[in-house]
Amino acid sequence: MCSQLQAAMSSLIDVFHSYSGREGDKYKLNKLELKNLLKEELSELLSDPMVVEKIMNDLDENQDGQVDFQEFVVLVAALTVACNEFFIVCEESCKQEHPGPKKN
Amino acid sequence: MCSQLQAAMSSLIDVFHSYSGREGDKYKLNKLELKNLLKEELSELLSDPMVVEKIMNDLDENQDGQVDFQEFVVLVAALTVACNEFFIVCEESCKQEHPGPKKN
Repeated sequence: MCSQLQAAMSSLIDVFHSYSGREGDKYKLNKLELKNLLKEELSELLSDPMVVEKIMNDLDENQDGQVDFQEFVVLVAALTVACNEFFIVCEESCKQEHPGPKKN
Repeated sequence: MCSQLQAAMSSLIDVFHSYSGREGDKYKLNKLELKNLLKEELSELLSDPMVVEKIMNDLDENQDGQVDFQEFVVLVAALTVACNEFFIVCEESCKQEHPGPKKN
Protein backbone atom coordinates (compact mmCIF):
# COMPACT_ATOMS: atom_id res chain seq x y z
CA MET A 1 0.00 0.00 0.00
CA CYS A 2 1.50 3.27 -1.17
CA SER A 3 1.25 6.38 1.08
CA GLN A 4 0.10 9.76 -0.27
CA LEU A 5 3.69 11.05 -0.10
CA GLN A 6 5.13 8.03 -1.90
CA ALA A 7 2.45 8.38 -4.57
CA ALA A 8 3.41 12.03 -5.06
CA MET A 9 7.12 11.15 -5.34
CA SER A 10 6.30 8.39 -7.79
CA SER A 11 4.22 10.86 -9.86
CA LEU A 12 7.18 13.25 -10.11
CA ILE A 13 9.32 10.43 -11.51
CA ASP A 14 6.56 9.29 -13.89
CA VAL A 15 5.87 12.78 -15.23
CA PHE A 16 9.57 13.44 -15.86
CA HIS A 17 10.10 10.18 -17.76
CA SER A 18 6.90 10.53 -19.77
CA TYR A 19 8.46 13.65 -21.35
CA SER A 20 12.21 12.85 -21.20
CA GLY A 21 11.64 9.52 -23.00
CA ARG A 22 10.21 11.13 -26.13
CA GLU A 23 13.47 11.83 -28.00
CA GLY A 24 17.29 11.82 -27.58
CA ASP A 25 18.62 10.90 -24.12
CA LYS A 26 15.59 9.24 -22.54
CA TYR A 27 16.66 10.21 -19.02
CA LYS A 28 17.01 13.94 -19.79
CA LEU A 29 14.67 16.67 -21.01
CA ASN A 30 15.82 18.58 -24.07
CA LYS A 31 14.40 22.05 -24.73
CA LEU A 32 11.36 20.78 -26.66
CA GLU A 33 10.54 18.13 -24.07
CA LEU A 34 10.84 20.70 -21.26
CA LYS A 35 8.65 23.13 -23.20
CA ASN A 36 5.98 20.46 -23.64
CA LEU A 37 6.17 19.47 -19.98
CA LEU A 38 5.78 23.07 -18.78
CA LYS A 39 2.96 23.70 -21.25
CA GLU A 40 1.01 20.53 -20.56
CA GLU A 41 1.64 20.18 -16.83
CA LEU A 42 2.08 23.71 -15.49
CA SER A 43 0.28 26.05 -17.89
CA GLU A 44 -1.89 27.39 -15.09
CA LEU A 45 1.15 28.40 -13.05
CA LEU A 46 3.46 29.46 -15.89
CA SER A 47 1.40 31.25 -18.49
CA ASP A 48 4.15 33.43 -20.02
CA PRO A 49 5.76 31.67 -23.03
CA MET A 50 9.03 33.59 -22.44
CA VAL A 51 9.34 31.74 -19.18
CA VAL A 52 10.40 28.46 -20.84
CA GLU A 53 13.67 29.96 -22.12
CA LYS A 54 14.33 31.51 -18.71
CA ILE A 55 13.59 28.26 -16.84
CA MET A 56 15.73 26.19 -19.24
CA ASN A 57 18.69 28.52 -18.65
CA ASP A 58 18.16 28.60 -14.89
CA LEU A 59 17.68 24.85 -14.54
CA ASP A 60 20.42 23.69 -16.84
CA GLU A 61 23.17 24.08 -14.27
CA ASN A 62 25.83 22.26 -16.27
CA GLN A 63 24.86 24.12 -19.48
CA ASP A 64 24.53 21.01 -21.66
CA GLY A 65 21.15 22.12 -23.12
CA GLN A 66 19.42 19.31 -21.22
CA VAL A 67 17.67 19.09 -17.87
CA ASP A 68 18.23 15.96 -15.81
CA PHE A 69 15.90 14.68 -13.08
CA GLN A 70 17.82 16.39 -10.26
CA GLU A 71 17.61 19.74 -12.07
CA PHE A 72 13.88 19.15 -12.68
CA VAL A 73 13.23 18.39 -9.00
CA VAL A 74 14.83 21.71 -8.05
CA LEU A 75 12.22 23.49 -10.20
CA VAL A 76 9.35 21.48 -8.76
CA ALA A 77 10.60 22.09 -5.21
CA ALA A 78 10.85 25.86 -5.78
CA LEU A 79 7.39 26.03 -7.36
CA THR A 80 5.86 23.95 -4.59
CA VAL A 81 7.40 26.18 -1.91
CA ALA A 82 5.98 29.22 -3.73
CA CYS A 83 2.54 27.57 -3.95
CA ASN A 84 2.68 26.70 -0.26
CA GLU A 85 3.51 30.31 0.67
CA PHE A 86 0.62 31.50 -1.48
CA PHE A 87 -1.66 29.03 0.30
CA ILE A 88 -0.57 30.29 3.74
CA VAL A 89 -0.96 33.98 2.78
CA CYS A 90 -4.47 33.24 1.46
CA GLU A 91 -5.43 31.36 4.59
CA GLU A 92 -4.10 34.09 6.90
CA SER A 93 -5.83 36.87 4.96
CA CYS A 94 -9.04 34.84 4.91
CA LYS A 95 -8.86 34.50 8.70
CA GLN A 96 -8.43 38.28 9.09
CA GLU A 97 -11.42 38.97 6.87
CA HIS A 98 -13.59 36.35 8.53
CA PRO A 99 -12.37 35.96 12.13
CA GLY A 100 -13.97 33.11 14.07
CA PRO A 101 -16.10 33.69 17.19
CA LYS A 102 -14.17 35.26 20.09
CA LYS A 103 -13.44 33.04 23.06
CA ASN A 104 -14.91 34.13 26.44
CA MET B 1 -8.52 20.23 -14.57
CA CYS B 2 -5.40 19.49 -12.55
CA SER B 3 -2.34 17.94 -14.28
CA GLN B 4 -0.47 14.95 -12.81
CA LEU B 5 2.40 17.24 -11.80
CA GLN B 6 0.13 19.78 -10.15
CA ALA B 7 -1.64 16.98 -8.30
CA ALA B 8 1.72 15.71 -7.02
CA MET B 9 2.76 19.22 -5.88
CA SER B 10 -0.59 19.67 -4.18
CA SER B 11 -0.15 16.31 -2.42
CA LEU B 12 3.23 17.42 -1.02
CA ILE B 13 1.57 20.50 0.48
CA ASP B 14 -1.39 18.49 1.82
CA VAL B 15 0.80 15.82 3.42
CA PHE B 16 3.00 18.42 5.13
CA HIS B 17 0.04 20.35 6.59
CA SER B 18 -1.80 17.22 7.67
CA TYR B 19 1.12 16.57 10.07
CA SER B 20 2.34 20.13 10.83
CA GLY B 21 -1.18 21.20 11.89
CA ARG B 22 -1.41 18.68 14.72
CA GLU B 23 0.28 20.70 17.49
CA GLY B 24 2.27 23.93 18.12
CA ASP B 25 3.10 26.05 15.06
CA LYS B 26 0.67 24.69 12.48
CA TYR B 27 2.97 25.55 9.57
CA LYS B 28 6.00 23.70 10.96
CA LEU B 29 6.77 20.12 11.90
CA ASN B 30 8.08 19.57 15.40
CA LYS B 31 10.05 16.42 16.17
CA LEU B 32 6.99 14.31 17.00
CA GLU B 33 5.11 15.45 13.90
CA LEU B 34 8.14 14.73 11.69
CA LYS B 35 8.54 11.32 13.31
CA ASN B 36 4.89 10.49 12.60
CA LEU B 37 5.17 11.73 9.02
CA LEU B 38 8.27 9.63 8.32
CA LYS B 39 6.74 6.58 10.01
CA GLU B 40 3.34 6.80 8.34
CA GLU B 41 4.39 8.06 4.91
CA LEU B 42 7.88 6.70 4.29
CA SER B 43 8.25 3.60 6.44
CA GLU B 44 9.05 1.49 3.39
CA LEU B 45 11.96 3.76 2.44
CA LEU B 46 13.19 4.67 5.91
CA SER B 47 12.95 1.61 8.10
CA ASP B 48 15.69 2.46 10.64
CA PRO B 49 14.21 4.29 13.66
CA MET B 50 17.57 6.03 14.31
CA VAL B 51 17.10 7.78 11.01
CA VAL B 52 14.46 10.19 12.37
CA GLU B 53 16.95 11.89 14.68
CA LYS B 54 19.50 12.11 11.87
CA ILE B 55 16.96 13.54 9.40
CA MET B 56 15.66 16.07 11.94
CA ASN B 57 19.20 17.34 12.55
CA ASP B 58 20.02 17.44 8.85
CA LEU B 59 16.79 19.14 7.79
CA ASP B 60 16.54 21.68 10.57
CA GLU B 61 18.94 24.13 8.95
CA ASN B 62 18.19 27.00 11.30
CA GLN B 63 18.36 24.70 14.36
CA ASP B 64 15.02 25.79 15.88
CA GLY B 65 13.89 22.19 16.49
CA GLN B 66 11.25 22.57 13.79
CA VAL B 67 11.10 21.74 10.10
CA ASP B 68 9.34 24.22 7.81
CA PHE B 69 7.90 23.41 4.40
CA GLN B 70 11.01 24.47 2.50
CA GLU B 71 13.20 22.22 4.66
CA PHE B 72 10.71 19.36 4.15
CA VAL B 73 10.74 19.80 0.36
CA VAL B 74 14.54 19.47 0.39
CA LEU B 75 14.13 16.01 1.98
CA VAL B 76 11.45 14.94 -0.47
CA ALA B 77 13.54 16.17 -3.42
CA ALA B 78 16.62 14.27 -2.23
CA LEU B 79 14.63 11.08 -1.63
CA THR B 80 12.90 11.35 -5.00
CA VAL B 81 16.23 11.82 -6.80
CA ALA B 82 17.55 8.73 -4.98
CA CYS B 83 14.43 6.74 -5.96
CA ASN B 84 14.78 7.88 -9.57
CA GLU B 85 18.43 6.75 -9.67
CA PHE B 86 17.40 3.39 -8.22
CA PHE B 87 14.70 3.12 -10.92
CA ILE B 88 17.24 3.86 -13.70
CA VAL B 89 19.82 1.39 -12.34
CA CYS B 90 17.12 -1.31 -12.15
CA GLU B 91 15.95 -0.60 -15.67
CA GLU B 92 19.49 -0.64 -17.10
CA SER B 93 20.42 -3.88 -15.32
CA CYS B 94 17.13 -5.44 -16.45
CA LYS B 95 17.98 -4.54 -20.06
CA GLN B 96 21.44 -6.16 -19.72
CA GLU B 97 19.91 -9.34 -18.32
CA HIS B 98 17.13 -9.46 -20.91
CA PRO B 99 18.41 -7.69 -24.05
CA GLY B 100 15.83 -7.16 -26.78
CA PRO B 101 16.14 -8.75 -30.24
CA LYS B 102 19.21 -7.56 -32.16
CA LYS B 103 18.60 -5.28 -35.11
CA ASN B 104 19.71 -6.57 -38.51
